[in-house]
Amino acid sequence: MSAESRFLSLLRSIATDPAARGLADDVALLEIGGARLILTSDTMVEGVHYLPADPPADIGWKLAAVNLSDLAAKGAKPAGCLLSYALSGDESWDATFLEGLKEALNYYAMPLLGGDTVTMPPRAPRSYSLTAIGEATGPIPARSGARAGDRLYVTGPVGDAGVGLELARLSSGAAGPLIEAFRRPRPRLAEGMLLAPHVHAMMDVSDGLLLDASRMGAASGLAVTIDHIPLSSALEAVRGGSTATQIAAARAGDDYELLFALPARMKPSVRAIPVGRFSAGAGLTLVIDGAAVPLPDSLGWEHG
Amino acid sequence: MSAESRFLSLLRSIATDPAARGLADDVALLEIGGARLILTSDTMVEGVHYLPADPPADIGWKLAAVNLSDLAAKGAKPAGCLLSYALSGDESWDATFLEGLKEALNYYAMPLLGGDTVTMPPRAPRSYSLTAIGEATGPIPARSGARAGDRLYVTGPVGDAGVGLELARLSSGAAGPLIEAFRRPRPRLAEGMLLAPHVHAMMDVSDGLLLDASRMGAASGLAVTIDHIPLSSALEAVRGGSTATQIAAARAGDDYELLFALPARMKPSVRAIPVGRFSAGAGLTLVIDGAAVPLPDSLGWEHG
Repeated sequence: MSAESRFLSLLRSIATDPAARGLADDVALLEIGGARLILTSDTMVEGVHYLPADPPADIGWKLAAVNLSDLAAKGAKPAGCLLSYALSGDESWDATFLEGLKEALNYYAMPLLGGDTVTMPPRAPRSYSLTAIGEATGPIPARSGARAGDRLYVTGPVGDAGVGLELARLSSGAAGPLIEAFRRPRPRLAEGMLLAPHVHAMMDVSDGLLLDASRMGAASGLAVTIDHIPLSSALEAVRGGSTATQIAAARAGDDYELLFALPARMKPSVRAIPVGRFSAGAGLTLVIDGAAVPLPDSLGWEHG
Repeated sequence: MSAESRFLSLLRSIATDPAARGLADDVALLEIGGARLILTSDTMVEGVHYLPADPPADIGWKLAAVNLSDLAAKGAKPAGCLLSYALSGDESWDATFLEGLKEALNYYAMPLLGGDTVTMPPRAPRSYSLTAIGEATGPIPARSGARAGDRLYVTGPVGDAGVGLELARLSSGAAGPLIEAFRRPRPRLAEGMLLAPHVHAMMDVSDGLLLDASRMGAASGLAVTIDHIPLSSALEAVRGGSTATQIAAARAGDDYELLFALPARMKPSVRAIPVGRFSAGAGLTLVIDGAAVPLPDSLGWEHG
């Protein structure tokens, strides 16, 4: 068990309120005065969650996007957010960060309501937190509701952000759709609201398709089979479509597509790609080109 | 204008939703589905907001307390909070921090609902954010509502935490009520709920009585006179009661008492000490032992 897992166990012993959902989900659900609120908070740290050379506007965008993606997975409508910002000592950098944050908040109609600004000691890594509040618009899907026989879908191809990260590491000035996928993820808020009333389970794919699908299977008490790994044409143009490329794409994090379980008789109400199915049992099976393949040692990104 | 002020100006240009209240207050007010929510977020950074040698349980307590104090100033009832925690690399330190946080949350009946845990790069300073959500229980006081003729009150003596900080700097093992005031502030949640329906203006004293009173006066478009600086017997035992001691106490931060304006004809509904009055005009006047004294160069703690 990692230090983080042990810390989370301690946190669970404090977070005993039903609204905390045992910290088993990415969000908390707070019912108050007739409103059903979805609460989430995500922190980004320089050198951990982004590259120091990433453009500051993109970091601002991404901080908003990762939080909004948690709301999307619950079918929630953005209601407001609070920013905790550590001044970097470089005013122009900070201003550009805010520009990117503003673009994302405007794009997704998420009001910035307040927060806190602190000055860090010299040479401290930059870090930022955003707390996002959403309002449930209908049923609130959990990651634990999949049923045997359900199909598993994802709202778009996977792996683009992972390859984008590799390309950005090689050259901070690189551009194109894969870099864009890594630096400016597009949370699926509209899709989340449309899907929430129909899905049995839903979550965002932030840590890799294999890892997140296995989490949905475990939370639902089911076995899950992944039999298709959807790649974008941009990714195939750079990496081809070999089994190794497919596995790498399914292990890569930062995609922020939605992953959901739907009864086999139903068609998704938004554009989505079937990637697998649930059945009685436990564990993850990976099938590529019709044949079961051994699972990689690590299924995805354990952060962090 | 400081870098932080310029950054806040940029933030204000983004935070245009009415719920953000122009970022002029310590909190945001979000009305949603019939609920009136008070939102606040405070970050504590090692070496900036606390001493590296402070006991971790006290740091955990204080992180909760500073956020709860913002709710107290609005007469809000705690509804839930989210923790953003940077693992320190020292598991026993982290566990003790959580113990202190838990004590404060239990004491004030504030449920921990979720959050995010990150691992910082080596040698990064520790930092933590808490976002607290409260539910308004009645009228929500602003800092801007004082009227000419109102009396100004504070719920307890000021300056204890400031002297506690000085003592803690001299010896990390020091103990006693002043150290306790610095490390384990007691936000006035019950007092805030009882006062909120009656006050014209209210805020917590986090940056020093002089600075916070001058802010209330400026926000209300009034002149404010401070004619009494209440000192605790613990502080007087260490520092005496000279004019210099009184001014130092009125400039010290971290008290977390409530400061409020009440019509002269009303008596406060909780224990409180009269410290001044509002009148037409602008600016802060300080009166000690019946005579106006020059204001110190810095009125309090501009953070940070």
